[in-house]
Amino acid sequence: MGEKEIPGYTYGTQAVAKSPVSLEDFDLLKKTVLFTEEDEKYLRLAGEVLGDQVEEVLDLWYGFVGSHPHLVRYFSDLQGEPDSSYLAAVRKRFAQWILDTCNRTYDQDWLNYQHEIGLRHYHTKKNKTDNVQSVPIISYRYLITFIYPITATIKPFLEKKGHSAEEVEKMHQAWFKSLLLQVTLWTNPYLRQEDY
Amino acid sequence: MGEKEIPGYTYGTQAVAKSPVSLEDFDLLKKTVLFTEEDEKYLRLAGEVLGDQVEEVLDLWYGFVGSHPHLVRYFSDLQGEPDSSYLAAVRKRFAQWILDTCNRTYDQDWLNYQHEIGLRHYHTKKNKTDNVQSVPIISYRYLITFIYPITATIKPFLEKKGHSAEEVEKMHQAWFKSLLLQVTLWTNPYLRQEDY
Repeated sequence: MGEKEIPGYTYGTQAVAKSPVSLEDFDLLKKTVLFTEEDEKYLRLAGEVLGDQVEEVLDLWYGFVGSHPHLVRYFSDLQGEPDSSYLAAVRKRFAQWILDTCNRTYDQDWLNYQHEIGLRHYHTKKNKTDNVQSVPIISYRYLITFIYPITATIKPFLEKKGHSAEEVEKMHQAWFKSLLLQVTLWTNPYLRQEDY
Repeated sequence: MGEKEIPGYTYGTQAVAKSPVSLEDFDLLKKTVLFTEEDEKYLRLAGEVLGDQVEEVLDLWYGFVGSHPHLVRYFSDLQGEPDSSYLAAVRKRFAQWILDTCNRTYDQDWLNYQHEIGLRHYHTKKNKTDNVQSVPIISYRYLITFIYPITATIKPFLEKKGHSAEEVEKMHQAWFKSLLLQVTLWTNPYLRQEDY
C-alpha cells in the first residue's frame, strides 16, 4: 500500500503542526540516548530486514494487545467491545510507522509527525483521525511500559535475514534508542510544558 | 555503608507516603513489560554480580552526566556550577538504588519509595532532601531518555563474573524491565492523575 493510500497518514503535510520540541532540544535528546550516524545506518539496514516482515510483526503486537484486556480497552467502543475497524485503521499506520522509524530522516517533518502521533494518543486527537467512539486517551503509563514489548519482540525479526550477531545487535540498539526518542516526543502533550 | 547511614534514604519509613499507584495497577504494568518471577530471580543474581561493582558503575554514570552540560545542570547551583556535595549526597542513594533494584521485593514499601523518588525529581521535593539550591525540577524528557545509558552500560558489568551469555541476557532483560517500571512510577508526579 502506498503512503498516500493510508487513511489519516498525514506525514509531511500541512495538516501537521510544528513540534514544540526544537531541533536543538532534539539534538540533546539524541546525545542522551547516544544516538549517532551509526544508528541511522543500522536503522536503514533494519528497514531492509523488516520490510517484508511488517505484517508478521504487527500480528505479534496485535496478539499481545488483544490478549490483555487492560491494553485492548484503548481500542474498544464505549460498550467495551474491541472495535475491529478502528484496530484495522490504526494497523495500516502502525505498519508505516515501522518503515518510517527505519527509513525516515529525523528532521523537522519527522519531529512534527512524532508530536502529531502524541496528540493522537492524548485527549487532543484520540479517536478523531478514525472518527471512532472509544476511551478518550491512552493512559500515559502504558506508553512507557509498552517500550518493552516493542523493543524485545523486534529482535527475532532482525535476526531472520542472515546478518551477524553484531549487526543484529546494532540494529536492535538503534531501534531501542529511536523508540525512546519517539516515546519522549509522543508524551509531550501529556506534560505541562514547563515540566517537560 | 549501611542503609541507615545514608542521608535522606527513607525506604520503608513513615516519612514515605503511600504511592498513588495501587498494587493492582502495578500488576498490570508488570504484565505489560512481561515481568515475571523469573525476572525477580535474575535480578537477585544481578545483585550478586553488581554488589562489589557499584562504585565502578557510578563512576561511569557520573562521568556520562558530568560530560554533558545539559545533564549536569540538574546538579548545579544557581550560578550554574556543579554542586559537588549535592552530587556526592545523591551518589550514596544511587548506590543503594542499584542494590534495591536487584534485591528488594517489589511490594507496597517498594512502590511507595518509587513514588518518593519521583517526588524528589519533581518540583515537590527536588533539592529538599539534600537542602541544596539548584534547578527546581529534573526535566521530564531526560527521565525517559536516560533509560538508554542506564540500560546499555550495565551489561558489561553483568558480564564480568563469568556467567553464561544466556544468564547475562536474562539479568539484562530483567534490569531493563525493572527500569521501565520504575521510570513509569517516578514520572507519576509529572502527570495529571486522570492522564496517567
